[in-house]
Amino acid sequence: MMTLTSPTTLAFGAGPAPLPSWNEGPTKQSILNFVREVTTAGSPQFVIPEERIAVFDNDGTLWCEMPFYIQLAFVFDRMKAMAPQHPEWKDNLIYAAVLANDMKTVAAGGLKGLLELATVTHAGMTTDEFAKIVEDWIASARHAKFNRLYTDVIYQPMLELLAYLRANGFKTFIVSGGGIEFMRVFAEKVYGIPPEQVIGSSIVTKFEVVDGVPVLTRLPELNFMDDNVGKPVGINMHIGRRPIAAFGNSDGDLQMLQWTTAGTASRFGLLVHHTDPVREFAYEASSMGKLDVALTEAAARGWTVVDMKNDWNRVFAFEGNG
Amino acid sequence: MMTLTSPTTLAFGAGPAPLPSWNEGPTKQSILNFVREVTTAGSPQFVIPEERIAVFDNDGTLWCEMPFYIQLAFVFDRMKAMAPQHPEWKDNLIYAAVLANDMKTVAAGGLKGLLELATVTHAGMTTDEFAKIVEDWIASARHAKFNRLYTDVIYQPMLELLAYLRANGFKTFIVSGGGIEFMRVFAEKVYGIPPEQVIGSSIVTKFEVVDGVPVLTRLPELNFMDDNVGKPVGINMHIGRRPIAAFGNSDGDLQMLQWTTAGTASRFGLLVHHTDPVREFAYEASSMGKLDVALTEAAARGWTVVDMKNDWNRVFAFEGNG
Repeated sequence: MMTLTSPTTLAFGAGPAPLPSWNEGPTKQSILNFVREVTTAGSPQFVIPEERIAVFDNDGTLWCEMPFYIQLAFVFDRMKAMAPQHPEWKDNLIYAAVLANDMKTVAAGGLKGLLELATVTHAGMTTDEFAKIVEDWIASARHAKFNRLYTDVIYQPMLELLAYLRANGFKTFIVSGGGIEFMRVFAEKVYGIPPEQVIGSSIVTKFEVVDGVPVLTRLPELNFMDDNVGKPVGINMHIGRRPIAAFGNSDGDLQMLQWTTAGTASRFGLLVHHTDPVREFAYEASSMGKLDVALTEAAARGWTVVDMKNDWNRVFAFEGNG
Repeated sequence: MMTLTSPTTLAFGAGPAPLPSWNEGPTKQSILNFVREVTTAGSPQFVIPEERIAVFDNDGTLWCEMPFYIQLAFVFDRMKAMAPQHPEWKDNLIYAAVLANDMKTVAAGGLKGLLELATVTHAGMTTDEFAKIVEDWIASARHAKFNRLYTDVIYQPMLELLAYLRANGFKTFIVSGGGIEFMRVFAEKVYGIPPEQVIGSSIVTKFEVVDGVPVLTRLPELNFMDDNVGKPVGINMHIGRRPIAAFGNSDGDLQMLQWTTAGTASRFGLLVHHTDPVREFAYEASSMGKLDVALTEAAARGWTVVDMKNDWNRVFAFEGNG
């Protein structure tokens, strides 16, 4: 699994400096220090390559989550595309609110309402059919603020961090509350993270042979919620060993960071704090979650907190050089 | 992920011939032909390395499953070790049968009885504690027929097959009805398959912070049964793309082979048929499952069937050279 012979690794000292979109300072230095500690043979903190597991939240950590989760935009677009076949939706308060772009009523439906919308739009087809729907949507839908494809509103500094860790023998995983089969459609192309290293929430699938063809059909039933206490559970289920570095941005990532950084060995936790209202967004709380308890615990446990405005000289690749 | 620069790969033509424990003949040739087809650049059947996923059943495919599943021996040993703390077990028909080595009564309890025994012995501790229990047991318990450690009763030809596929850019996974956290304790050391590439049945785990320490506690509740129709579901959940080669030995692997080999592209299915009563065991049916429908379907679908007695010149490494 190691890439010790890759050109990137051989570039130590000779090639371009790592993490160019990160400003010099204690935040960037904490990353460099950690990687040096765990990869230097003979160091008391040395970790063998097989155990260099790094886990990344997706929404708000690798790509933009404002003004709402990108997967929610997918849900809304799907509802609108499917509405002509479902005249009965006009009698459902939440469904009708989606079709009328009435976000206030949708939000009032809470998590329960959102889950119902998610299953309506994510179930009732095979896994192959669902992947095709996501593939087509992600190739054309655009972010309202930036007027860019969603696969463009990913954080350039985090892409550099993923590549830097992999060049140092790390295996990188996504551990997100988002849909596992939604993210897998683009994660390899966009993040260089293959499907088998994407962990997320899921609905139940059922194996059946239809007209002689074996298919997996997606059912309108929640299988696993990969958020909060679910994140360490999902990590254990899919990876089976404890990560040594975890990256998140909200209280939904708290338990993942706790699980990763427990013990006395050199472990790394990082939170992205959205502090840049110009280049991106500034918030600690939103309808999408909040950064509160995790921020307090970061101080107590020595987790790194990224001040997006001051620590990143570039947020998105499309900005050009900062 | 590729190991193109490994010495094994560079040995094409020059080094030792692959699969030395496989006798020359159509069975071995079918494997060599398939690997050549999907790895030869320009071949109409060429598959990019990222999609070279191979899945292996464990019990009866990679290691011995007779006279009963090895994990069942673990369950019985654990019951006996735990019995002094559980005087009430003598009043439970199945529990008492285990303690009295009365396999007939245990078997009469069916799958339900076995699942109950499994949860009693597999739950009620943290994931770290369970791993330690398995680690200690597997280091000392012995197979009754061979008087060998269980990690010695693995099939040498299948070890060679795993290595041969990996040397050709394949990523190898275990997909077993056995316990995921049971197998992960030894799979990397024994098969060269890391924990994140082991898929199996599981019980529910719960994240909690106990005395300031985050732990995952194993609960006496089934989470996922990775057998029969569960195998394609587990593959999709953990890998997220369809394998191109699948290896099994019983009807429990039927759906995994169907899912893997569907379509018109070059795909490979293989069943190990236990035909050697001297070096191992000969059976199509046992209390552990049967090879019936899958064997019929193998003929119809062109899956390779290994005749263990005639296709393998060596079953276990401890036999010495065949």
